[in-house]
Amino acid sequence: MKRSIATVSLSGTLEEKLRACANAGYDGIELFENDLLCSVHAPETVRRMCEDLGIEIALYQPFRDFDSTDPARFARNLERARRKFDLMHRLGADKILVCSHVGADAVFDRQQLVDQLGQLARLAQSAHVEAGYEALAWGRHVHSYRDAWRAVREVDHPNLGIVLDSFHTLSIRDDLSELDSIPGDRITFVQLADAPLLAMDVLEWSRHFRCFPGQGSFELAPFVAPILRNGYAGPLSLEVFNDGFRSAPARVTALDGLRSLIWVEDRARAYLDAHDVFATPAAAVFAVHDGESGSTHDEPQGIGHATAAVESVRAQTAAPASLVSPTGFAFLEFAVDDATRTRLADWLAHFGFVRARRHRSKRVSLYQQGPVNLILNAEPDSFADRFYGEHGLSLCAAALAVDDADTTLNRATTFRYAPYKGSVGPEEREIPGVVAPDGSLIYLVADGPGKPTIYDTDFVPTHETAPADAADLTGIDHLCLALPRDAIDSWVLFAQAAFGLKPEQQWMLPDPYGLVRSRALRSDDGRLRISLNTSDDTRTSVARALTTYGGAGLHHVAFGTSNAIRTAAHLAARGVPMLAIPDNYYEDVAARFGLDDAFVAQLRESNVLYDRDEQGGELLHAYTQQIGTRFFFEIVERRGGYDGYGVANTPVRNAAHAWVRALAQQ
Amino acid sequence: MKRSIATVSLSGTLEEKLRACANAGYDGIELFENDLLCSVHAPETVRRMCEDLGIEIALYQPFRDFDSTDPARFARNLERARRKFDLMHRLGADKILVCSHVGADAVFDRQQLVDQLGQLARLAQSAHVEAGYEALAWGRHVHSYRDAWRAVREVDHPNLGIVLDSFHTLSIRDDLSELDSIPGDRITFVQLADAPLLAMDVLEWSRHFRCFPGQGSFELAPFVAPILRNGYAGPLSLEVFNDGFRSAPARVTALDGLRSLIWVEDRARAYLDAHDVFATPAAAVFAVHDGESGSTHDEPQGIGHATAAVESVRAQTAAPASLVSPTGFAFLEFAVDDATRTRLADWLAHFGFVRARRHRSKRVSLYQQGPVNLILNAEPDSFADRFYGEHGLSLCAAALAVDDADTTLNRATTFRYAPYKGSVGPEEREIPGVVAPDGSLIYLVADGPGKPTIYDTDFVPTHETAPADAADLTGIDHLCLALPRDAIDSWVLFAQAAFGLKPEQQWMLPDPYGLVRSRALRSDDGRLRISLNTSDDTRTSVARALTTYGGAGLHHVAFGTSNAIRTAAHLAARGVPMLAIPDNYYEDVAARFGLDDAFVAQLRESNVLYDRDEQGGELLHAYTQQIGTRFFFEIVERRGGYDGYGVANTPVRNAAHAWVRALAQQ
Repeated sequence: MKRSIATVSLSGTLEEKLRACANAGYDGIELFENDLLCSVHAPETVRRMCEDLGIEIALYQPFRDFDSTDPARFARNLERARRKFDLMHRLGADKILVCSHVGADAVFDRQQLVDQLGQLARLAQSAHVEAGYEALAWGRHVHSYRDAWRAVREVDHPNLGIVLDSFHTLSIRDDLSELDSIPGDRITFVQLADAPLLAMDVLEWSRHFRCFPGQGSFELAPFVAPILRNGYAGPLSLEVFNDGFRSAPARVTALDGLRSLIWVEDRARAYLDAHDVFATPAAAVFAVHDGESGSTHDEPQGIGHATAAVESVRAQTAAPASLVSPTGFAFLEFAVDDATRTRLADWLAHFGFVRARRHRSKRVSLYQQGPVNLILNAEPDSFADRFYGEHGLSLCAAALAVDDADTTLNRATTFRYAPYKGSVGPEEREIPGVVAPDGSLIYLVADGPGKPTIYDTDFVPTHETAPADAADLTGIDHLCLALPRDAIDSWVLFAQAAFGLKPEQQWMLPDPYGLVRSRALRSDDGRLRISLNTSDDTRTSVARALTTYGGAGLHHVAFGTSNAIRTAAHLAARGVPMLAIPDNYYEDVAARFGLDDAFVAQLRESNVLYDRDEQGGELLHAYTQQIGTRFFFEIVERRGGYDGYGVANTPVRNAAHAWVRALAQQ
Repeated sequence: MKRSIATVSLSGTLEEKLRACANAGYDGIELFENDLLCSVHAPETVRRMCEDLGIEIALYQPFRDFDSTDPARFARNLERARRKFDLMHRLGADKILVCSHVGADAVFDRQQLVDQLGQLARLAQSAHVEAGYEALAWGRHVHSYRDAWRAVREVDHPNLGIVLDSFHTLSIRDDLSELDSIPGDRITFVQLADAPLLAMDVLEWSRHFRCFPGQGSFELAPFVAPILRNGYAGPLSLEVFNDGFRSAPARVTALDGLRSLIWVEDRARAYLDAHDVFATPAAAVFAVHDGESGSTHDEPQGIGHATAAVESVRAQTAAPASLVSPTGFAFLEFAVDDATRTRLADWLAHFGFVRARRHRSKRVSLYQQGPVNLILNAEPDSFADRFYGEHGLSLCAAALAVDDADTTLNRATTFRYAPYKGSVGPEEREIPGVVAPDGSLIYLVADGPGKPTIYDTDFVPTHETAPADAADLTGIDHLCLALPRDAIDSWVLFAQAAFGLKPEQQWMLPDPYGLVRSRALRSDDGRLRISLNTSDDTRTSVARALTTYGGAGLHHVAFGTSNAIRTAAHLAARGVPMLAIPDNYYEDVAARFGLDDAFVAQLRESNVLYDRDEQGGELLHAYTQQIGTRFFFEIVERRGGYDGYGVANTPVRNAAHAWVRALAQQ
């Protein structure tokens, strides 16, 4: 597939945008008219710049409000179109997007619309360009691709096709079935955007909250698959209006966009394989698009002729390695120096962790409790040390347990995520790693049964003994990260594309000092969960957890337990500074859920919070105080299939942490 | 009037919120339930804290989803209400807000609703509390105050009244006429919020975008006036859910809220005087509210008995001095040191300004051209010097021309804006000033005809001669300020309350590196215009113009001219570095407005931009390059009553400035 992006999706001057597109590896761009108007460069110069960079101007856009019930205005619009066609010649662009009219003079009568679009098509023919008609979701009379397609089909002219845009179709939950009936060669252009589900005016939603495929909530494969199957040979192009993208560096946004296109292609491939009515392997569909598509018929062609096409090198190289679902966290690694190592180790000892092993050659220790592995890394000149120097005590890496580390790494690098290779000493195992979008490090550990683990090969036992009364930890339930502003989307795409983690609903959660945007990711089986949090406000607990160099910071680690009340009481008895929960909370929670007094007394006694979902699943969870006002630990007991994170209790936790901080400052 | 605010409107812990309310001078608060749940303090302690601070808990809120078609659930809801009434006793609160039900089991049948509310009223009576029923705009069946009032009237019980909320009423453009028929003593509580007009889901709008009266677009006086006229004696209370307020310091937000209540009272007073069907001065209406209201009748009482009430001291002191509309800018003052003075003076000389006067005793000069006065202040140890030290070359004060400076200052201080008195030397005039919310300084200058001006008394002529070919400046058309994030609302309230400037529509404008939120203020006659701009993105031209200490920065000064093309050409000829506008812009503007070639050639030649409004009014304007990548000048010619700011051309300007910066960095 050819890959393209609209210049409006990126920040900066036109030069910066074009350079970012070329660097990321796009084949083409949609030139947004305003970017040309604001540029000092003449159209011929822009054309040459694109040629020099090896990208084509695949589409000029938008041409608004073409049709009109006012004959004088329509005549002016035709003249306006003629001028734009001239401009396109100077740019070397041969396709233009014409979107449905939103104004009061928009044509309602079908025949009049067909007549006017027919005049446009003939003008386009004489100018040797192609116009693509697009239904805006908020068009006055034409707001579905189905309306647009009916008009285009009736005009029946080779210089007028349809432009399909996933946002305009999916935002109004439009019927997708008619996509099947649009022949690929009648599709002038395909624009892709994803979006979170928001209850708001569709125009505002479109202008500010679109995002790249894989970052939002739309299912794009059912939209893209029929288009590809019908032989569309043009680029898949990203048209994303997003307030965050408007300010983020174009280089970074462009790269994420390219990743999202690789992901969409991958999903469409899987979708076609699963749904292929023609029983033709998806590879053939992908192969055709760099070949030729000669169909001019009015009915869908299937892909009979597609299999004859030469499979393009790009289609070959773009197919990512298959997905390997992580099965959980292998370990978490903290960057420490000697002072903070003592402090954190003290916390962990109270928690019932034992320093089970130390590294053969490095100042690295492994703390264990049940299935939970935490590594404290004080090694000078290591990744951890550099991280520590920039930030101080925090998480510096998370290791995912996977069945096949090489395949997982391979897949991640197909999506252009950077592999990481740390310095490895003699007789030490190399652990493959990948750098997350925020710059933090994700290790990939495949410790199958019978295989020696990294702890066997690189560590030696300390023979320190675990306390007899260790807490009852069943694993790492979830990891909660604080991300810089606007960084959640990049991370969601990363986790979804590289590891197949599914993003859940986004929450806005109150902190006493602002709002927190939160979105959780989980593996299909729920064994790996990561919660991503960001806050525009500088005094929230999430903002405090950010690293000083601007990357992800650890907000908290939640350990699973089979009995939260017992474990919380036990930890408190062992001297772990648990977070005190206000009495007022318990009075409310008792009334809200109709809990019996004895149970509420137990919760209150152990400072355990409670939540219940609509299916009757229950969450019992408790928090520690913050370690140095930064991160903290949580214990989590899930009962009856409870699948959330107790977000209803987040305000109580945030207020309680704020209260402890306020006391400390007095 | 008593003044109150909901704790949910403020950030921080409950202690911080209560302290902020007391410091600002509120009489009471609405205690938002979640603030109590999240507090470590028992209800009795919260009660004592409020007593110690001299504020009452005027309302406990909210009680949600009371009525139910499910008898078992309704029984539980009654029990839930009984518990809340107990809690209110512990808090010392005797009023509770009960909002209309949003869930699927909400009661539709009027008689059933009246029955259930009747049970609530009798329960409230036995608990010696009063329930106030409020229609949420998104309630399932009850979403207008008119529905709520019908139910309350039919229940006809002294322990059940109505809660009126301006947002729920004005957001749905509800019919206000029935407010007249609600007797004041049947109104349990009145909540006020303003909001910008936004095309979005009303629930989301309400939860994130409410603002204080005077900051949004709602007309509050027609809502408040009938309530007051009918003898409502409780507080006017602010209930504002606003993302910015959630993070801003509670102290600052609380003070702005109090100002907004003073403003609402002032507007309601004016509205009553203008519309008073009872021909009773508004002062009497205001006076009654701290007296007693003994009406228990079911029909409006007018204010016959109101005039008998003792006029409260608060009502007296709260009435602000009358409004004096500024007639323009008297001068703008720049903070400079010796180096930047030379640089800016050089710019001004090219512009055709002459250094007409110098200060008698200070290192301060007056530059003049036509009616425009600019002061360059390099005086050590002055306000300007402190400002300069923190920030460098920028605007440090703006002086408004007013007919009566003392009254204006008096009015501003009634709204709790801080007066400013600078150090004044012997035989120098003292200029009254007021500190704007961002910390910048606004002088008030009343130079009537015949009165000696500050330039006469404090300055001596330099006898430098104006250039023969000065530009044709007709005045300062507008001042454009860059404000920190979330600071526009505070400034709008300031300018509206203190100076009577009217806020216009808010715009979101694109910069190559992000978005800019822009809102203009103008005096009724348009002779004083200030444009306020803010950007969450750090690389926009607005963000670059912010002062380093976090206050307002000068973005640009726009001078009026009677002929923009001639003036722009003239300035370019005099060596002013005008901003080059791309050719592409002119091709588009010619096509868009159907301009003739000769005119477009003139615009292009002089780098003048063009806009036209729907009434045919025209704007011709041109920009200089930025002085030190910070602020710049604009010249503006308004034709045929054009009243805007050419926002359609803002992207072109921002891109052109970015291009100049990029060239400078190469």
